[in-house]
Amino acid sequence: MGNTFGRLFRITTWGESHGVGVGVVIDGCPPRLALDESMIQLELDRRRPGQSKLTTQRREADQVEIISGVYEGQTLGTPIALMVRNQDARGKDYSEIRNKLRPSHADYTYQAKYGVRAVEGGGRASARETVGRVAAGAVAQRVLEPLGVEVVAWVEQVADIKSDVDVDTVDRAAVEATIVRCPDPEVATQMIARIDATRKAGDSLGGVVKAVARGVPVGWGAPVFDKLEADLAKAMISLPAAKGFEIGSGFAGVTMTGSEHNDPFYSDGGRIRTRTNYSGGIQGGISNGEPIVLRVAFKPTATILRKQDTVTVDGEPTVLEPRGRHDPCVLPRAVPIVEAMMRLVLADHYLLHRGQLG
Amino acid sequence: MGNTFGRLFRITTWGESHGVGVGVVIDGCPPRLALDESMIQLELDRRRPGQSKLTTQRREADQVEIISGVYEGQTLGTPIALMVRNQDARGKDYSEIRNKLRPSHADYTYQAKYGVRAVEGGGRASARETVGRVAAGAVAQRVLEPLGVEVVAWVEQVADIKSDVDVDTVDRAAVEATIVRCPDPEVATQMIARIDATRKAGDSLGGVVKAVARGVPVGWGAPVFDKLEADLAKAMISLPAAKGFEIGSGFAGVTMTGSEHNDPFYSDGGRIRTRTNYSGGIQGGISNGEPIVLRVAFKPTATILRKQDTVTVDGEPTVLEPRGRHDPCVLPRAVPIVEAMMRLVLADHYLLHRGQLG
Amino acid sequence: MGNTFGRLFRITTWGESHGVGVGVVIDGCPPRLALDESMIQLELDRRRPGQSKLTTQRREADQVEIISGVYEGQTLGTPIALMVRNQDARGKDYSEIRNKLRPSHADYTYQAKYGVRAVEGGGRASARETVGRVAAGAVAQRVLEPLGVEVVAWVEQVADIKSDVDVDTVDRAAVEATIVRCPDPEVATQMIARIDATRKAGDSLGGVVKAVARGVPVGWGAPVFDKLEADLAKAMISLPAAKGFEIGSGFAGVTMTGSEHNDPFYSDGGRIRTRTNYSGGIQGGISNGEPIVLRVAFKPTATILRKQDTVTVDGEPTVLEPRGRHDPCVLPRAVPIVEAMMRLVLADHYLLHRGQLG
Amino acid sequence: MGNTFGRLFRITTWGESHGVGVGVVIDGCPPRLALDESMIQLELDRRRPGQSKLTTQRREADQVEIISGVYEGQTLGTPIALMVRNQDARGKDYSEIRNKLRPSHADYTYQAKYGVRAVEGGGRASARETVGRVAAGAVAQRVLEPLGVEVVAWVEQVADIKSDVDVDTVDRAAVEATIVRCPDPEVATQMIARIDATRKAGDSLGGVVKAVARGVPVGWGAPVFDKLEADLAKAMISLPAAKGFEIGSGFAGVTMTGSEHNDPFYSDGGRIRTRTNYSGGIQGGISNGEPIVLRVAFKPTATILRKQDTVTVDGEPTVLEPRGRHDPCVLPRAVPIVEAMMRLVLADHYLLHRGQLG
Repeated sequence: MGNTFGRLFRITTWGESHGVGVGVVIDGCPPRLALDESMIQLELDRRRPGQSKLTTQRREADQVEIISGVYEGQTLGTPIALMVRNQDARGKDYSEIRNKLRPSHADYTYQAKYGVRAVEGGGRASARETVGRVAAGAVAQRVLEPLGVEVVAWVEQVADIKSDVDVDTVDRAAVEATIVRCPDPEVATQMIARIDATRKAGDSLGGVVKAVARGVPVGWGAPVFDKLEADLAKAMISLPAAKGFEIGSGFAGVTMTGSEHNDPFYSDGGRIRTRTNYSGGIQGGISNGEPIVLRVAFKPTATILRKQDTVTVDGEPTVLEPRGRHDPCVLPRAVPIVEAMMRLVLADHYLLHRGQLG
Repeated sequence: MGNTFGRLFRITTWGESHGVGVGVVIDGCPPRLALDESMIQLELDRRRPGQSKLTTQRREADQVEIISGVYEGQTLGTPIALMVRNQDARGKDYSEIRNKLRPSHADYTYQAKYGVRAVEGGGRASARETVGRVAAGAVAQRVLEPLGVEVVAWVEQVADIKSDVDVDTVDRAAVEATIVRCPDPEVATQMIARIDATRKAGDSLGGVVKAVARGVPVGWGAPVFDKLEADLAKAMISLPAAKGFEIGSGFAGVTMTGSEHNDPFYSDGGRIRTRTNYSGGIQGGISNGEPIVLRVAFKPTATILRKQDTVTVDGEPTVLEPRGRHDPCVLPRAVPIVEAMMRLVLADHYLLHRGQLG
Repeated sequence: MGNTFGRLFRITTWGESHGVGVGVVIDGCPPRLALDESMIQLELDRRRPGQSKLTTQRREADQVEIISGVYEGQTLGTPIALMVRNQDARGKDYSEIRNKLRPSHADYTYQAKYGVRAVEGGGRASARETVGRVAAGAVAQRVLEPLGVEVVAWVEQVADIKSDVDVDTVDRAAVEATIVRCPDPEVATQMIARIDATRKAGDSLGGVVKAVARGVPVGWGAPVFDKLEADLAKAMISLPAAKGFEIGSGFAGVTMTGSEHNDPFYSDGGRIRTRTNYSGGIQGGISNGEPIVLRVAFKPTATILRKQDTVTVDGEPTVLEPRGRHDPCVLPRAVPIVEAMMRLVLADHYLLHRGQLG
Repeated sequence: MGNTFGRLFRITTWGESHGVGVGVVIDGCPPRLALDESMIQLELDRRRPGQSKLTTQRREADQVEIISGVYEGQTLGTPIALMVRNQDARGKDYSEIRNKLRPSHADYTYQAKYGVRAVEGGGRASARETVGRVAAGAVAQRVLEPLGVEVVAWVEQVADIKSDVDVDTVDRAAVEATIVRCPDPEVATQMIARIDATRKAGDSLGGVVKAVARGVPVGWGAPVFDKLEADLAKAMISLPAAKGFEIGSGFAGVTMTGSEHNDPFYSDGGRIRTRTNYSGGIQGGISNGEPIVLRVAFKPTATILRKQDTVTVDGEPTVLEPRGRHDPCVLPRAVPIVEAMMRLVLADHYLLHRGQLG
């Protein structure tokens, strides 16, 4: 259970960190959209490890293969199956983590729930699972692009180093200009230095990814449980290491009064808009035409290169020895993943809206 | 779309603010649970307006009727239908809001999406919709109680007034001891004073509800998209006025390092536990046996008793005149609603776990 | 579980035979459709008991109430809740069936599965459950009517008495012309006589309902599991007493050769049609523009006025004494129910098609 | 849409006839079940073309690969991805069917719905799609086997040649004893002769597969829409070429009276059983412990080696020339497919039952 997301644009992901590969099946994608592997590869390359000195040095080319659902360069309307074969094969020495539970990983809970787990690299609980999400997000982008919907995410904060970026103008070029994917070059420099230092110390950092969707028309979403922001919240908090979610004013909004927080309507040449956007582009679960703005908090990476107190699978006290490689800060690689999830939610709600309203 | 929540313990809510009534159908509830109206009424009474000087003076007895699914005091295993008839009937003068869009309400988005809306009181977008959630949550409680699962929520913060409450010991008695539902009496006094002053000023306040689930066994939840925390996030962000969600360390966790944030495992007399609980009781989407701790940010109520700039349905500039009653701070009434949603998510995951694992 | 049907046009039914009432919640209905109670009542009156001498004399006015989702005569796009209160109240002597299992009813399986059951009238397993289906089908009709889709069902066969009716021209007037709802008046007369005789003998009869949907455009449906005919099969076999389903040629088609059974395409003034329609209007799960033709077999009613060997709830041999009223042949009342289910499937697939294809 | 089946034991299939391959993702399978490729291959070998002189001579080894979800010989509880690569590669001359619509195939409806189609071999509409179903069914068998549930299907009828086989004793050995998979050797001989003659004539035949599930405990299933027989009906009618479905007495039951058709209960040493089984092992949607018996009608194969009148994609009259290979009767190969679908439905309902009832 739990490996399917979406209702009309619906994806199912599969695969373990060190198995044969990872992949995704996308059901419900509209037909006759141009699609080839390069469009998907572009996003996977932004997610893959080893792309800069900031990320884990695990070597994965993450080459995507389209196995079904595309014919002569066009989507068929039937399931699109995508696969990425793993290269970092099994066979290394995983005896350390076979018996010792890694703190703040899913080793313990998977073992307790299922009575079995794929030991190497966390198996299904590995962040490698997000390959399928990013690949599917690239397909969702083919649905959204013709509508003028544009999704941009970036690293807003690493540890206590914060940036302040204009949601109306930030673009991918600015995001990609630095390896930390923070569009403010000065802040980016500080972030990079901090991550470098932390890696050398064998420790790790958390941070915040902020994202905006511009060009979403008025009316996408639904009342009550499947509110657009509720689906976005689920999408983001389902990401590995995600601990917090905000839409619009978020937690900062709680210290404002209603008279400050309400977004006054005005007529912008006949189009109804709001002067402020504390609502974050969504009111009552339905998009209002303003930019949809959200933030996601990611905890510091659980894998660190330090000794840690823990227990064995049988509950005996032990010490986990540091070994191997680690990703001192997942934030830069989280950017394409957050974008993918936002696109998946929007594509699904677009089709849902079209289904009910025409 | 969007009015159903859950997979095995599944609820569907219906009803508008000023229609015949509001209600819920619960499908999938296990049979042979003792259930009568008083058990549901208890929770509805905590949610209903007019229960204290802090809340809106709208008069609704909110008397629940069990229409199906219970026989001779026991659940049947077939759908439980619950209904609360509305008393504040239609007929008053709603011409003001028929033509003028209330800022930060759902008037505009509903009108734009559907081309029609129930004008009075926001119709389906009214917080009155949560009656069905709370009633269903009381039924979910019948499932959880025999398992020793205990859910407690409280008002942690109003505007900038914060409390610090022990998640291991806080109980309902402490929460109910003050009308603001903050278990710290001194902080509660400050909150009440602030809310009073704000009501007199015709303005409104936001705040934070914190909640804990104790006694959840190890192993509930699922990997990837339906992670336990992801379903909690969706549940909470689907609430009216919710703008932010945190599990465990939340946004505060981003400024910690991994060596600080990782929760070391230890053996507590044979039971595997963690010394800290920054994970918030969930690791990799699956409960680890520690208390599940979350926080929800609510914006200040959109209805205020002040003049506001806005536009008509046709986009003409106008001024919305203040009128009627308002709820200067929804936080105290949000407490039973947050508890209900947490119970619904837990009951559903309990059944899902039992389905796959036995 | 199991009380929800459909994906975008989704209904959830509730209620027991002798509880407070029965009803349905419809989620996903498009907005701005004219709807009032008379439109629904029309179909319920065709389903209700006591409408002719052929059906059970249980007295139920089956008066429908719209509780939510309609505003000033129009659907809102949010959940439509419909309720019919029961009139044949509890309180009679049901001690006979409280302890004795009625053959070919659901008494035993409900008791065994749930460990509890609503004794009177079969509770949730009563055919009274179909009130919600018929009410929802009347709403689905509001979706289909503007598209020119017309659904007609009729009694094709009672016991071994068969009619042969032209699927291209049969209409409701012809169906309603006889109380047995067989459009061939001569055959209808025979059917009525047989049913009368069987009722006097305290026995019951089965039969076949045939249905056609005309005007369904090319392209509704889906490949593989959610084929249009597969959803129709589920819809029909989910009806009480249904034992068989056929689409197009059905079981008779198995004795034909491919060269006889294949439906040759031809151009009808530019429109692609088939000369025969053994496919029943669906090819590969998707409508081809020809009339969709199906048949449903209903077993003889399980309630008979004869002594029957059976066992008690505890497995002791006993004899069930005949008592009360019975419906010697459900076929005439099954006609509006089959129509309702067909409309629900078609409305759902219409919205699904529009969602993916625009 | 439409490529996912089941709720807790949920499968999603993908792949076209002449693409890279076909496959399935199974989500929700319980962990710690022994599983290897040979268990799946066994069933695929019964389905694959070219296994006897009766079936199409298309050469496909149909070698299955487990790509995820199995670790050290055990299921993990997370998604099981299975793939079969296609060998009959693209590249041949398909110009004939690129422009001409094959009668009673899905060429026209796919083209009309999607505006694009995978021309070769029918793409997604090919019976090759059932590879994923059969592979998944073999996994479902791992769930059912320890419970003592046994599913057997066989060819009951080819054209007008019928067998009469005892549902209580028929087993796989008897089914596999003849290449036509009819357990009555004399009838099988007639069927084989008829199929041979029909193949030489370039024509095709239909027939009926009958199936039984023995050992299903009392209580699986659900009321109303997700009745066990309704899910079986959907499963079977979703198969390529399926035109009819019966549970228990089916269409034959309509000519019986209630006093004949009702299944009297009796006590079999304390266990409640029925003396007859016209109900087909299910009452009110829930299994009653008797054998579950169903029948599925398959039309004659649409591909024949004869000239056929048809139209081009643009609606111009034309003649389709016979070419290539054909399968004169799909019935023998349908046997493992029907078994697979029955197992998938039962495994899903087993988990659903366990979820609600424990």
